[in-house]
Amino acid sequence: MLIVMQPNAGEEKIQKVIDFIKQKGFDAHISKGADHTVIGAVGRKVIDKRDIELLDGVKEVIRISSPYKLVSRVFKPTDTIIDVKGVKFGGDHIGMIAGPCTVETYEQMDETAKKLKSYGVKVLRGGAFKPRTSPYAFQGLGEEGLKILREVADKYDMVVTSEVMEVAQIPMFLKYVDILQVGARNMQNFNLLKSLGEVRKPILLKRGLSATIEEWLMSAEYIMAGGNREVILCERGIRTFEHITRNTLDISAIPVVQKISHLPVVVDPSHATGLRDKVAPMSKASIAAGANGLIIEVHNSPETAVCDGAQSLYPEQFKELYDELKALAVVLKKEFN
Amino acid sequence: MLIVMQPNAGEEKIQKVIDFIKQKGFDAHISKGADHTVIGAVGRKVIDKRDIELLDGVKEVIRISSPYKLVSRVFKPTDTIIDVKGVKFGGDHIGMIAGPCTVETYEQMDETAKKLKSYGVKVLRGGAFKPRTSPYAFQGLGEEGLKILREVADKYDMVVTSEVMEVAQIPMFLKYVDILQVGARNMQNFNLLKSLGEVRKPILLKRGLSATIEEWLMSAEYIMAGGNREVILCERGIRTFEHITRNTLDISAIPVVQKISHLPVVVDPSHATGLRDKVAPMSKASIAAGANGLIIEVHNSPETAVCDGAQSLYPEQFKELYDELKALAVVLKKEFN
Amino acid sequence: MLIVMQPNAGEEKIQKVIDFIKQKGFDAHISKGADHTVIGAVGRKVIDKRDIELLDGVKEVIRISSPYKLVSRVFKPTDTIIDVKGVKFGGDHIGMIAGPCTVETYEQMDETAKKLKSYGVKVLRGGAFKPRTSPYAFQGLGEEGLKILREVADKYDMVVTSEVMEVAQIPMFLKYVDILQVGARNMQNFNLLKSLGEVRKPILLKRGLSATIEEWLMSAEYIMAGGNREVILCERGIRTFEHITRNTLDISAIPVVQKISHLPVVVDPSHATGLRDKVAPMSKASIAAGANGLIIEVHNSPETAVCDGAQSLYPEQFKELYDELKALAVVLKKEFN
Amino acid sequence: MLIVMQPNAGEEKIQKVIDFIKQKGFDAHISKGADHTVIGAVGRKVIDKRDIELLDGVKEVIRISSPYKLVSRVFKPTDTIIDVKGVKFGGDHIGMIAGPCTVETYEQMDETAKKLKSYGVKVLRGGAFKPRTSPYAFQGLGEEGLKILREVADKYDMVVTSEVMEVAQIPMFLKYVDILQVGARNMQNFNLLKSLGEVRKPILLKRGLSATIEEWLMSAEYIMAGGNREVILCERGIRTFEHITRNTLDISAIPVVQKISHLPVVVDPSHATGLRDKVAPMSKASIAAGANGLIIEVHNSPETAVCDGAQSLYPEQFKELYDELKALAVVLKKEFN
Repeated sequence: MLIVMQPNAGEEKIQKVIDFIKQKGFDAHISKGADHTVIGAVGRKVIDKRDIELLDGVKEVIRISSPYKLVSRVFKPTDTIIDVKGVKFGGDHIGMIAGPCTVETYEQMDETAKKLKSYGVKVLRGGAFKPRTSPYAFQGLGEEGLKILREVADKYDMVVTSEVMEVAQIPMFLKYVDILQVGARNMQNFNLLKSLGEVRKPILLKRGLSATIEEWLMSAEYIMAGGNREVILCERGIRTFEHITRNTLDISAIPVVQKISHLPVVVDPSHATGLRDKVAPMSKASIAAGANGLIIEVHNSPETAVCDGAQSLYPEQFKELYDELKALAVVLKKEFN
Repeated sequence: MLIVMQPNAGEEKIQKVIDFIKQKGFDAHISKGADHTVIGAVGRKVIDKRDIELLDGVKEVIRISSPYKLVSRVFKPTDTIIDVKGVKFGGDHIGMIAGPCTVETYEQMDETAKKLKSYGVKVLRGGAFKPRTSPYAFQGLGEEGLKILREVADKYDMVVTSEVMEVAQIPMFLKYVDILQVGARNMQNFNLLKSLGEVRKPILLKRGLSATIEEWLMSAEYIMAGGNREVILCERGIRTFEHITRNTLDISAIPVVQKISHLPVVVDPSHATGLRDKVAPMSKASIAAGANGLIIEVHNSPETAVCDGAQSLYPEQFKELYDELKALAVVLKKEFN
Repeated sequence: MLIVMQPNAGEEKIQKVIDFIKQKGFDAHISKGADHTVIGAVGRKVIDKRDIELLDGVKEVIRISSPYKLVSRVFKPTDTIIDVKGVKFGGDHIGMIAGPCTVETYEQMDETAKKLKSYGVKVLRGGAFKPRTSPYAFQGLGEEGLKILREVADKYDMVVTSEVMEVAQIPMFLKYVDILQVGARNMQNFNLLKSLGEVRKPILLKRGLSATIEEWLMSAEYIMAGGNREVILCERGIRTFEHITRNTLDISAIPVVQKISHLPVVVDPSHATGLRDKVAPMSKASIAAGANGLIIEVHNSPETAVCDGAQSLYPEQFKELYDELKALAVVLKKEFN
Repeated sequence: MLIVMQPNAGEEKIQKVIDFIKQKGFDAHISKGADHTVIGAVGRKVIDKRDIELLDGVKEVIRISSPYKLVSRVFKPTDTIIDVKGVKFGGDHIGMIAGPCTVETYEQMDETAKKLKSYGVKVLRGGAFKPRTSPYAFQGLGEEGLKILREVADKYDMVVTSEVMEVAQIPMFLKYVDILQVGARNMQNFNLLKSLGEVRKPILLKRGLSATIEEWLMSAEYIMAGGNREVILCERGIRTFEHITRNTLDISAIPVVQKISHLPVVVDPSHATGLRDKVAPMSKASIAAGANGLIIEVHNSPETAVCDGAQSLYPEQFKELYDELKALAVVLKKEFN
């Protein structure tokens, strides 16, 4: 930690700061600049930097250690490649996840999965428990939905992912699902994150609507600190002043995270934009920026979908997009799998 | 719902929209303006407005029914006054909640509560389970903390509030706590909200860091829809581009919410600003703007506090502020209780 | 304009609203829904919708006419292609603009331009008047800078663009520059926009740091309303809560604007991210999302640049990126020119 | 400047950084911490910190000198009190500015000013040149408006303020106006700021819609660096994700700015909220938080106002508010003048 003193802070104030940090278990290194004296607090103790900021004569206090460890490239310099029954996310491998917002019926899932599989998709998505802003909206089929998802996936030899909303649901999810998804609204549900740290299946961790990249990585750290090293990060748009799209997809988060962390980053263009005709350009942009995967909503009949039909692609639209994405990947020396 | 057609949308496109909404169970009222035809979709069915927005020739679709019912002044025009063992929040009554961020020891709570009570404070706060961004930070005393809180409160005849983080913790909280607090990060933890709807104690619901006022009210609606009519809303700062304070306290939310809803609104200036010297001006501003209460962090020894000491007031500072607030309340024809 | 009445607004309140809008020169169309009466105010008069919102019993007022006309696809359905001495922006044509942040010396511009031209770039950028946050920072060479820019561009048969900061500078810019740039901070300098409406050279209009897409289009409308139909829109990042990058590049603005407007949209990845290593991924993402051009900072010697060296590419880096972008364009069926 | 090296940066990388900053004219002080080596770059040269951030092995670079000088309390510890013909802003003096958004007619100004003066208001506002988002909206009376403003102010012995939009308008404004206002959209119109530095009348500088407090102070620094020491800062709401109010009034900016700077801070609650019924609570909150003044829109007949009638108070409403504000000021030991 670096403590920058006010230009006019005299010896007495400087000494008081030194005494304070020593008492807290730190060593002090003093260096005098043109305007400011800077005190380095050396040590591994934990302290709230604001406690020092409130001392007399202190201009600001700067934390220099990163708060995350396990997620960082300092800890693990090489890309983490997460292999879900043969489907790889990370490094030069791009994973494609597709399927409807919500599991509605066996027929709906069967039809959708059949087409997706025929296009080459290996990971199927579908919600069984839905976080809805209104208590009066459809909340999902529950365990019945997970059963359908699993049954259909097995029929077409696919891998499945679905969103878990609560600690108590985890054992149920482990029975049916290959990748457990944490939704944006639960990104800082720390009890849930801790429990997922004890799971031995990959976690797809969505970025919260207003989470900084650092907070997002800290949530991944929660999971990894529990012993689960398989976290796939998922950018899905942030909340900004611009309301013409539902959220603002933060595509620059892809290269930023990939520089700091070894974990794979996938993108959800469907939730970010909320409108079908924006999914294709945002998918292409994500892959061009280096994303390690995509999660795209596709429904066999979007106009009758129970939820989020407006942002779901028709299967044929999806196929066309997928073909174009594969062509882009070749130019970018990456590969869909 | 109102469907605004593009200026150049011909009869055929208009008819297709009419057919679509009729098939969804709505009646259609057509009115032609100078540039635009507007179709009113009349009925009480639920439909995703984006499904209509994607139809050919549609410019935009406007939802006109409010998504909330029970929280609205349309449902209940008069102010809800929540009475917690004689302490009132709402209407002209201003409630004061004070105490440390975290319960650390019996002595800390005893000393703090003793002073607060002597100043006239009747509601004691203190965290037992702490939502921390880092998995490596202190996470609270757990049930032991709740016990201390209760014991001290009983000694000084005070009422207590503490943050509940998970569905499974609710029965434990009901044993010790008078007001259950939902933290900003859990404002859209819908499973938790639903379970709190079945509780028969007041809930203090903090606004999420990036929650719109409408979303915040919808979360209150979740609780009320379950049968619990005692929700105290708590503004605690929103995330904006400005980083000089931790968050931006949205004081205008007070009159805005009070116009839409009958529920009381209190303010947490400690978490909003994150710095002790900003707590007094923001407390005064909140009361001046019409807040129905405050929740302020006070610690008997802030410099040795385990967490958030930097934003905690010294007891004497708090007393001085409280006296000034009471004087302001007189001018504003409100009353602390 | 649509006026939505409160559910409980009686006949008397409705009549008062009708009288009010009639007096303002509108016709009234009434339609009754399940909960709400909606009054359509028909006519072309201009009225502040808040004047109606304040009337008794009014829930909300919805403006349905777009505020922009000339920039809209309703006005001109086909893509505008802007041809600057043979370089095309718009439709399937992608324009590439490159050069240093600031014109420093003849040698610097000559070296940079020579290399850029050899790679195929036809439009040279370089600032002569610099908008700097600090009054103590380098403010540009002024007219001398424009002279150097012109001289070097003529030597290599290139087209030039530079930022104009004030009405009084316009005649000087017309002598030297082919495309006049309006910076983000001046996007709502309405006097400047009006004066540029009288110019007969293309304008590159950057989006303001916190401008909505609608406001950005309204600023283009200012220029077009003056008679200048050649506006190139430039997305350059918006201000959000996320500070890890300088700004958040809003790539979804590309397809959004292209749907509403016929004007070309280019992207400035250098200013958006502020760091050299993020320029390549964001350039690729922009082209993949459908951008009609890029404006990239390139400096012959970034480490000695007077300003923004950190976000400037080395010429060789730029060449490598440009080659990759051309390969992506082929897949996307677009063409650099 | 402090340069924090990566934990794994070896001696060679550290030496390269030292060589780089020495070559740029700085001295280097090295201190080794538990994880990180920190290099202090000592000296007064100007350097873009990103140039160092891009060097190998550098984790981050921290600027420790404040970019502002003249606006800072380090430069001038005591409150600046600006006296405009006897009306004082700053210290314990609260100034009240009131009047319509726009000067429409002599009669309108005369009626409004007469009432305001009778309530005790000494500073009259009124726009003559209006920055409007749409080129098709009313743009103000121009110089004719300034003449009316002056004439009416002289009749009632009042002081006047109005917004200047362009460098070329300054001489005209100096003839009629006592305080020159810079609008939010022009807060970073640096040419205008520089020219206002040469003026010898007070400047009321509004905060830009998305300007950080630091940028706002830097704009004040532009004016002060030109020799004009009389700057009144004006908070008027920032742009956030919340759209239920037009802007989010950042009341915490008042104590934050007052701690950093000696300049007075006034608040414009009318533009911040955009709705009449929010003006009173936000005015009271601003004064309670320590504002040195208010600028409030009042119109003799809001329902016929040419612009912003919806946010203008009726004269009688204003009187009631003003009386309540004076009573609050007494409790706060401040004084309206």
